[in-house]
Amino acid sequence: MGIYFESVNKVAYEGKSSKNPLAFKYYNPEEMIGGKTMKDHLRFSVAYWHTFTADGTDPFGAGTMERPWDRFSGMDLAKARVEAAFELFEKLGVPFFAFHDRDIAPEGKTLSETNENLNTILAMIKDYMKTSNTKLLWNTANMFTNRRFVHGAATACNADVFAYAAAQVKKGLETAKELGAENYVFWGGREGYETLLNTDLKLELDNMARFLHMAVDYAKEIGFTGQFLIEPKPKEPTTHQYDTDAATTISFLKQYGLDQSFKLNLEANHATLAGHTFEHELRVARTSGLLGSVDANQGNPLLGWDTDEFPTDLYSTTLAMYEILQNGGLGCGGLNFDAKVRRTSFEPDDLVYAHVAGMDSFARGLKVAHKLIEDRVFEDAIAERYSSYTEGIGLDIVEGRANFHTLEAYALNHHNIKNVSGRTEHLKAMLNQYLLEVE
Amino acid sequence: MGIYFESVNKVAYEGKSSKNPLAFKYYNPEEMIGGKTMKDHLRFSVAYWHTFTADGTDPFGAGTMERPWDRFSGMDLAKARVEAAFELFEKLGVPFFAFHDRDIAPEGKTLSETNENLNTILAMIKDYMKTSNTKLLWNTANMFTNRRFVHGAATACNADVFAYAAAQVKKGLETAKELGAENYVFWGGREGYETLLNTDLKLELDNMARFLHMAVDYAKEIGFTGQFLIEPKPKEPTTHQYDTDAATTISFLKQYGLDQSFKLNLEANHATLAGHTFEHELRVARTSGLLGSVDANQGNPLLGWDTDEFPTDLYSTTLAMYEILQNGGLGCGGLNFDAKVRRTSFEPDDLVYAHVAGMDSFARGLKVAHKLIEDRVFEDAIAERYSSYTEGIGLDIVEGRANFHTLEAYALNHHNIKNVSGRTEHLKAMLNQYLLEVE
Amino acid sequence: MGIYFESVNKVAYEGKSSKNPLAFKYYNPEEMIGGKTMKDHLRFSVAYWHTFTADGTDPFGAGTMERPWDRFSGMDLAKARVEAAFELFEKLGVPFFAFHDRDIAPEGKTLSETNENLNTILAMIKDYMKTSNTKLLWNTANMFTNRRFVHGAATACNADVFAYAAAQVKKGLETAKELGAENYVFWGGREGYETLLNTDLKLELDNMARFLHMAVDYAKEIGFTGQFLIEPKPKEPTTHQYDTDAATTISFLKQYGLDQSFKLNLEANHATLAGHTFEHELRVARTSGLLGSVDANQGNPLLGWDTDEFPTDLYSTTLAMYEILQNGGLGCGGLNFDAKVRRTSFEPDDLVYAHVAGMDSFARGLKVAHKLIEDRVFEDAIAERYSSYTEGIGLDIVEGRANFHTLEAYALNHHNIKNVSGRTEHLKAMLNQYLLEVE
Amino acid sequence: MGIYFESVNKVAYEGKSSKNPLAFKYYNPEEMIGGKTMKDHLRFSVAYWHTFTADGTDPFGAGTMERPWDRFSGMDLAKARVEAAFELFEKLGVPFFAFHDRDIAPEGKTLSETNENLNTILAMIKDYMKTSNTKLLWNTANMFTNRRFVHGAATACNADVFAYAAAQVKKGLETAKELGAENYVFWGGREGYETLLNTDLKLELDNMARFLHMAVDYAKEIGFTGQFLIEPKPKEPTTHQYDTDAATTISFLKQYGLDQSFKLNLEANHATLAGHTFEHELRVARTSGLLGSVDANQGNPLLGWDTDEFPTDLYSTTLAMYEILQNGGLGCGGLNFDAKVRRTSFEPDDLVYAHVAGMDSFARGLKVAHKLIEDRVFEDAIAERYSSYTEGIGLDIVEGRANFHTLEAYALNHHNIKNVSGRTEHLKAMLNQYLLEVE
Repeated sequence: MGIYFESVNKVAYEGKSSKNPLAFKYYNPEEMIGGKTMKDHLRFSVAYWHTFTADGTDPFGAGTMERPWDRFSGMDLAKARVEAAFELFEKLGVPFFAFHDRDIAPEGKTLSETNENLNTILAMIKDYMKTSNTKLLWNTANMFTNRRFVHGAATACNADVFAYAAAQVKKGLETAKELGAENYVFWGGREGYETLLNTDLKLELDNMARFLHMAVDYAKEIGFTGQFLIEPKPKEPTTHQYDTDAATTISFLKQYGLDQSFKLNLEANHATLAGHTFEHELRVARTSGLLGSVDANQGNPLLGWDTDEFPTDLYSTTLAMYEILQNGGLGCGGLNFDAKVRRTSFEPDDLVYAHVAGMDSFARGLKVAHKLIEDRVFEDAIAERYSSYTEGIGLDIVEGRANFHTLEAYALNHHNIKNVSGRTEHLKAMLNQYLLEVE
Repeated sequence: MGIYFESVNKVAYEGKSSKNPLAFKYYNPEEMIGGKTMKDHLRFSVAYWHTFTADGTDPFGAGTMERPWDRFSGMDLAKARVEAAFELFEKLGVPFFAFHDRDIAPEGKTLSETNENLNTILAMIKDYMKTSNTKLLWNTANMFTNRRFVHGAATACNADVFAYAAAQVKKGLETAKELGAENYVFWGGREGYETLLNTDLKLELDNMARFLHMAVDYAKEIGFTGQFLIEPKPKEPTTHQYDTDAATTISFLKQYGLDQSFKLNLEANHATLAGHTFEHELRVARTSGLLGSVDANQGNPLLGWDTDEFPTDLYSTTLAMYEILQNGGLGCGGLNFDAKVRRTSFEPDDLVYAHVAGMDSFARGLKVAHKLIEDRVFEDAIAERYSSYTEGIGLDIVEGRANFHTLEAYALNHHNIKNVSGRTEHLKAMLNQYLLEVE
Repeated sequence: MGIYFESVNKVAYEGKSSKNPLAFKYYNPEEMIGGKTMKDHLRFSVAYWHTFTADGTDPFGAGTMERPWDRFSGMDLAKARVEAAFELFEKLGVPFFAFHDRDIAPEGKTLSETNENLNTILAMIKDYMKTSNTKLLWNTANMFTNRRFVHGAATACNADVFAYAAAQVKKGLETAKELGAENYVFWGGREGYETLLNTDLKLELDNMARFLHMAVDYAKEIGFTGQFLIEPKPKEPTTHQYDTDAATTISFLKQYGLDQSFKLNLEANHATLAGHTFEHELRVARTSGLLGSVDANQGNPLLGWDTDEFPTDLYSTTLAMYEILQNGGLGCGGLNFDAKVRRTSFEPDDLVYAHVAGMDSFARGLKVAHKLIEDRVFEDAIAERYSSYTEGIGLDIVEGRANFHTLEAYALNHHNIKNVSGRTEHLKAMLNQYLLEVE
Repeated sequence: MGIYFESVNKVAYEGKSSKNPLAFKYYNPEEMIGGKTMKDHLRFSVAYWHTFTADGTDPFGAGTMERPWDRFSGMDLAKARVEAAFELFEKLGVPFFAFHDRDIAPEGKTLSETNENLNTILAMIKDYMKTSNTKLLWNTANMFTNRRFVHGAATACNADVFAYAAAQVKKGLETAKELGAENYVFWGGREGYETLLNTDLKLELDNMARFLHMAVDYAKEIGFTGQFLIEPKPKEPTTHQYDTDAATTISFLKQYGLDQSFKLNLEANHATLAGHTFEHELRVARTSGLLGSVDANQGNPLLGWDTDEFPTDLYSTTLAMYEILQNGGLGCGGLNFDAKVRRTSFEPDDLVYAHVAGMDSFARGLKVAHKLIEDRVFEDAIAERYSSYTEGIGLDIVEGRANFHTLEAYALNHHNIKNVSGRTEHLKAMLNQYLLEVE
């Protein structure tokens, strides 16, 4: 093994003082944190598309990525990518990977031929998985790249496209079962609109719900028991994406009776594009019991598109892990690096540097978050802050004994209200201290 | 009459060629449009706070507004404002107005004294309303200006504040009944958070729902039968406002069983702050049957705060009226000018110019939208575009007869899919043509 | 003629009542406006790249465009595009076109071969131009698509790239001279940075200036007398683009002694990405005497990337033409449609609809702007507003006779200052009235 | 001493393990870093307006701040603020403070009376300064709060306002000289426009330049030798602020011959509002030799207005200190906390917590930046990256020996270009490692 990332050995934990760029400084997979190994807490996953399929194309330029497997083409290229993938999985020691159907095998001239291509590669992947420690976190269907999806898939204005998408997801669910995927993801690539002037919004949403119900039914039929996930994003590629953010997606799931079947797959960069912090989206999903999995990346707050950067902002990784720990972990979900190396970081080693950067950043975030919770830094401040709801009129409110009559009577006698500072600046300083000092 | 706007006579319709800045060019209240008068379609409302109470203060400067009634102070000022208000209502010929409790009367030293002040002014307003053609579209409670609401009202971390807010809304509902308000509005001024680090988001949302349920109960008790409205906004003054946008608010209402009692009051500028077009928010509410009323204003797309400009963008007024007409009108809702003259437009006449500009812009929007619908410009394009769902496999999908097996079978035989252009550019040209040419 | 746009005849002016989607409603090329024909005022140009070369690829999807010439490939495709181009130019009656070197001919295996390809197509274009009424507004060099430009061109960290770019622009200037281009444009595709962490900003800016000076020198040497233009953009594809906006670019030109040799080519969508209105950018360039040419398009104010939509917003076209008329026109510049049909508008006819929409929108904007100026609507308001600078202390200030002593003496005696409303709302209503009513 | 911040002793350095919220964990004023004390590197300054004058008012609410000195009013309040200020300066051990004229003394009925008020307080401040270790970093004139500045000050459309502003700055320069201010700042509060429709942009910019030249002349006349600073901001309160960002301001200074007299005072939050990182603005000023001083705060990247938060983001403080160290320090400039405690942090102690958080964050940033430079982490990567400009064709380019002929000849022989990865992800990981591990 080692034909594609020749210069890289298995990436080891060397600790914080290490200057080796190909070693972990914070990610020590077997280290115990609160009764679980770091590896079990973090459940990292490599995204096949960004790492093995994408070539660095952007709206203004052609591919730049130097990939040793690009000396092949067609199905040979698809096979070489599988080899490269499992080589990298092992060297990074990641427990999971994730893919779209079209990442792993090229389309054929017909849907049948496409499925044949897929079957060939799936067999190869299955074979690799027998001896690999890396499992499938989730798979999904790419229903946005091919021109047939120009107007969407389940929300297309063309019923033939809906049917085609259904066939594709049917195959995807069979794939998920075959490979033991722990989840199946829907990201509505072009499920949205270009302009309301030509859009029947109601029909499109109804159709999307019909589509998801069919998927749930089919999963039951074939005995796929993984978790269904839906991934919010507010815009790009369409002007308006239906699964805008966590709250909107939860609203949709509830409205169409899908909230028992789906959880959310939340992406950091999609959160910020929607005008929310990542931790806000995680909190919203968590308090609704719908936090399923995470696309671990980051955006650039000054840019208005999805940059899908590898996560290195320690504030973001810490506050994300804080929400995840408070959620009792992600269950069968994981931290999937839906992240791409910059177009200017085109050498194969950059893939390793980038994953190391991301894994170390989340490892540090985990340790800081764990310690913050262990010390009840924010919990105690919050308990104190809301303590008025644990007694007297506050307890009456929370326990349903108050009404406008009793509250008015109370208020008329408590006109001078004493509030207490929210202490934002001090809490941020505490966060900095923990970030820097946790051992 | 005419002591505060001396230079202004009743604003009349003089038609498009008029150069009179104090005349309507497009708003002809008695003109029939599709079986109803323009006046009945548009249901304009003047916002008391921006027009009679606000002084032009901004975060970097003191008040600038020259208001003839400012020679008074205290309760005398409150009374002078009522006089000025009804003078302007009559001169503009607006059928509605709207206010917060604290707009019309100053706070006293105690809640009792505050309510006394309110009673005095309410009696005066009621008296005026006997002979005025202007009715109360809605009232609401200001639960964000006073320092007691620094951490929110129904979502405050302090139960005393919750109680105080309840007393205030109790009085507000009594006011609504007393004055025959057609709606009662909740805008969650500080219902949101500064930072998640000190916030119990779940408790705050639960409390907000408890509060709204109490309001619904009390309205039933006293026989107030107006429509309850809730107004989304994504941010400002808090970092995150809970009623972020239409979808989020609908999600909240459904989750807490409030969607039968509330509709949405949608504001154009709040839509754009949330990253949506105004027409998008209207469409979302409309397709959910929850479009209640409108705060008619506009933002500046290059500025990141709520500028609350008077609505003059004819694209926005046209597309808003398009959604409203498709909704069958706003029922007991209306078009409330939640808009303020610029701080640099500080002369009394600017209030008249601004309302004329807004009313004319919506009048033009109404005519254009009506004609677009009458000619089925977008409707026919949409019907054609989605026609595949009216027959064959498409009809099977819509009527629930399709599943992944039948769809896959279909797709395997329909691999080559023919899509049709969405025609965005042509539809925009059509919109321009109607905007410019409708008589 | 007519092999690629078979269904389209020469697009004619049919006037505002026309329902023909392939006719002009407002653009009447020979109509006189203020002593010049509409055609001479507007100097429209078709952008070769968006219209003949681009295929509708976006970051999430493959090409969608149906182009009859795509049945060819390689140099045959390049030739077919020339035929299609001149067919469309004639049918639209546009006086100009514009291209990048790589739009018109494919790269070869070496720079020499690339130049040979270019020569072949240039000869063909030159031949077409002999009998066509369409001239070359400007050409430019594509120094951002090929992977060699991954780190920039004139600002690349690699001197070999700088040299390559120089060779490419040398050829571009020769091309400009050969085809009689009226301008030569620099848009710094990747002249910017990904991160400051790896960037020598000073060296990069120095090198960019060196490059532009060499271009000026070479133009002189070969006798190319067209206008040099530089096009601002704030971001995308790089995180930070050096030519951020008009003011930044003017600063750069002045700092490096290039402001006598260059003017600005301003794009509407780049303006809004930089946080400015289009008219602001035009005003800044105009007051500096550096307004050269215009990339006529529009962005979506709710999206954070360059959407390059065809211009249909009549406010924007009116205010742009207002600035252009105040500038005495664009000289040898023009209105180049740097605009692409939406990916969902993929039929050949959409290209025609879109150009018609854009040309009509600017034609309407021209008429409205002309009438606004003729009636001195804003000019008189401005003259009145600043009248205090035409006499007394104001005139002293403007004519350099005032200093802090005289001004303090004046101020001590004029403490009570009377300001006058800026009348924003009324001016916006006037703009609407002119927009709708101008004949 | 100690009457206003009774619960706070002199804030001491207790080191990173300290749990005392009123102690420094990273800021050790006498610690040597690269030959200078931390205190000399950082030159912290307290902003009088946010800390002693502001009351927490925001656009939706009244003041919330609990300030012990608010039991006074009028001139007594002004005097109490001076006492509180010097108490806090000493307890924090800050070497500098900064103020606007109207922060320290209230306006009178006339300009003369206003100046009298000012004189009284200035005498008191001067007296305090005799025994205090805290000096005046800069003062400035508030020319935006009073309604007379509704249309701007030096760019007002009213010459009386220009004169008044001149009188105010005249007094400000005298104040600066009297108190030994090290700088004098211009922040153009309302120097911008609401709408271009009523604006003579050229006259306004000319007048602004005239004003600044008069200030320079008067400073010379009275022998004030401090540094003049101008502070960029892109928007708010006006729609467009003339001093948009560093590049725009430099352009203005150069165009009007003011770049020898002024340097820039750069604020972090203004940078991000302009779409730039703080470090970008610092770099632009630094490479132009115009980096003068810093307003140390931070914005919220998801909010579109100036939040003026205390700086706690360690990435931002580190990269700011990196630029400042590379600049050889700030000379007579400093790090002024133009930052306000949140409206919800209204207790007096929050002022201390917030300054401690800010000082600690910059102290940590200083240590990390110093170590990064000492180890040449980025410098070596950059030197290697641009090494092609130190020899061969690259050196020819830099030294002016290349032209389009020689470069083309070179390029024709070097068609196959080898680029090297920019290593963004690895550099970000290095930054994290230094942030976390520096001792």
